[in-house]
Amino acid sequence: MARIAVVAGDGIGPEVVGQARKVIDAVLPGVEATGYDLGAARYHRTGEVLPDSVLDELAGHDAILLGAVGDPTVPPGVLERGLLLKLRFAFDQYVNLRPSRLWPGIAGPLAAVKPGEVDLVVVREGTEGLYAGAGGSLHRNTPAEVATEESLNTRHGVERVIRDAFARARRRERRKVTLVHKTNVLTHAGSLWARAFEAVAAEHPDVTTEYQHVDAAAMFLVTNPQRYDVVVTDNLFGDILTDIAAAVTGGIGLAASGSINPEGRYPSMFEPVHGSAPDIAGKGVADPVAAVLSAALLLDQLGHVEAAARVTAAVATELAGRTPGAPLRTEEVGDRLAGYAVA
Amino acid sequence: MARIAVVAGDGIGPEVVGQARKVIDAVLPGVEATGYDLGAARYHRTGEVLPDSVLDELAGHDAILLGAVGDPTVPPGVLERGLLLKLRFAFDQYVNLRPSRLWPGIAGPLAAVKPGEVDLVVVREGTEGLYAGAGGSLHRNTPAEVATEESLNTRHGVERVIRDAFARARRRERRKVTLVHKTNVLTHAGSLWARAFEAVAAEHPDVTTEYQHVDAAAMFLVTNPQRYDVVVTDNLFGDILTDIAAAVTGGIGLAASGSINPEGRYPSMFEPVHGSAPDIAGKGVADPVAAVLSAALLLDQLGHVEAAARVTAAVATELAGRTPGAPLRTEEVGDRLAGYAVA
Ligand SMILES: CC(C)[C@H](C(=O)O)[C@@H](O)C(=O)O
Ligand SMILES: CC(C)[C@H](C(=O)O)[C@@H](O)C(=O)O
Repeated sequence: MARIAVVAGDGIGPEVVGQARKVIDAVLPGVEATGYDLGAARYHRTGEVLPDSVLDELAGHDAILLGAVGDPTVPPGVLERGLLLKLRFAFDQYVNLRPSRLWPGIAGPLAAVKPGEVDLVVVREGTEGLYAGAGGSLHRNTPAEVATEESLNTRHGVERVIRDAFARARRRERRKVTLVHKTNVLTHAGSLWARAFEAVAAEHPDVTTEYQHVDAAAMFLVTNPQRYDVVVTDNLFGDILTDIAAAVTGGIGLAASGSINPEGRYPSMFEPVHGSAPDIAGKGVADPVAAVLSAALLLDQLGHVEAAARVTAAVATELAGRTPGAPLRTEEVGDRLAGYAVA
Repeated sequence: MARIAVVAGDGIGPEVVGQARKVIDAVLPGVEATGYDLGAARYHRTGEVLPDSVLDELAGHDAILLGAVGDPTVPPGVLERGLLLKLRFAFDQYVNLRPSRLWPGIAGPLAAVKPGEVDLVVVREGTEGLYAGAGGSLHRNTPAEVATEESLNTRHGVERVIRDAFARARRRERRKVTLVHKTNVLTHAGSLWARAFEAVAAEHPDVTTEYQHVDAAAMFLVTNPQRYDVVVTDNLFGDILTDIAAAVTGGIGLAASGSINPEGRYPSMFEPVHGSAPDIAGKGVADPVAAVLSAALLLDQLGHVEAAARVTAAVATELAGRTPGAPLRTEEVGDRLAGYAVA
């Protein structure tokens, strides 16, 4: 039976993760879950972000479920780089998966887009690009200061994430993959991405392909998000595009994500895109849907495809029954979702 | 009297530029305009993109007005890098100015945003960052290929564009500047931007400031574009954010831009954000509003503030009088705008 590590984290993290676990237990009884105390609270208590011993322990699990980490009292970047990005790189989570659907029942911000019309997934590269941490500065704090950031891209890293995107497209109805880059300006990396994309596309004649510059894609996500099925892109472009995709489908409050090592050599990590929301923490009013959808991605990744589908269907039922603006209680939503999922 | 170089360009470029010139002539008679044949047509005829002799001649003008260059028959990147980016760098056009307004009369894509509520300007750095062209690749076309792109940032380059943003904020009602970067991941460049921003902010106690990560800003441009006044950001982030801003205010068909050398040591260049639109070229149906708004930015930059304001007001009148979906004729719109501007 699956062994998962649970990092409940800070703020609303424990509240929403509690519901995700409830739903997992409902559809897949017997999952072994071990809690790990990481995040702002631990950092303040011990000064530690992610001790090597904990990293080793996490490595022994099949997957990680994370609520949210962070707090305004932690210096910016400490938890992002020391925990989230460290896990992505240490566990070679090269597929950063971010589905966006405009669910029936959810009023998106776009006047011309109707619920059900948007159903896309961004496959964002997770271990390369400008996130490699390459760069430096000279003459700091003088008028002569220069600072660099380097985007590192390998054929190995680019091709494997593109392959993953095509494999996902084959599981979907429209079977379309859009490559997003900025090949007209970032010519070296752009050329590598474009050539790897062409090579993989040639092996998948049953998949429709297109290419768009990142600025155009950002625009079309607002004017015509319906056009996308699977989008594959680099680490930083994916960071930006997935937030736009979340925004046009009702906000990051509903958005799930997975940082995936597809081969399963290392554990994959699943987390809602939203943060720890300290303003509403402890009040029992956080929406657990993003955490529960992240649990569905986790189940799917571990091969429990049918259980995952039941969780996703439960979310659809829940959202379709909501009255816009009506208050919600985290626990009650979790109970309902667990109920729908086993019904 | 001002001497401007006019690069009408390809596709609908000549049609829309014709109207922009008409409007300039109406509000500021006597401007001396010289046409330069650059773009896809010249490239195909002569193989030349921007001969040095033409660059020298352009340098002798007060400003450049450009329609649109490009055509699907030109290899991607040739005109972008050989003409547009070359001019930005050669003429040290470090302020890339992109205003976005949701004009009364225009139905934007956002259900909750009413015309008149959005009025922001992005001040995008134009001569550094990932656009510097630094990067390379090794082991091309082998499984060992690696490709890099380097973002170069100098205190000199960063501070001057931030200063420009604060100066513009002082001319506006809300006097607010938002810095957008990704300081939690791009720590070297991010730190440089953040420190330069703080230093300039300290000299402008009358200006409100805030910082946002680029992914959050991309999201808020969709969920709450009203919150922005002046946004200052790096070259690539600005490329993406301005297309989102254009999208939420009715599309790139209405968006104007200026690539500005504020000191006037070199000519600044003004152009609509839209492309050459070969599909509708020659039909006389292209909307010249973006080109005319670009002409207003040109006039403002050359110090003809009152003439610029009259052109902008003419556009407001034109748009307020439009019936959504009604066909338009390029020439007629230009005539009306010229008429409103002198009325
Ligand atoms: C927290 C931050 C480092 C992270 C990223 O940039 O990847 C976040 O924005 C995300 O999208 O998961
Ligand atoms: C054509 C291209 C090089 C250019 C850019 O990336 O700056 C365009 O997208 C723009 O925004 O002006």
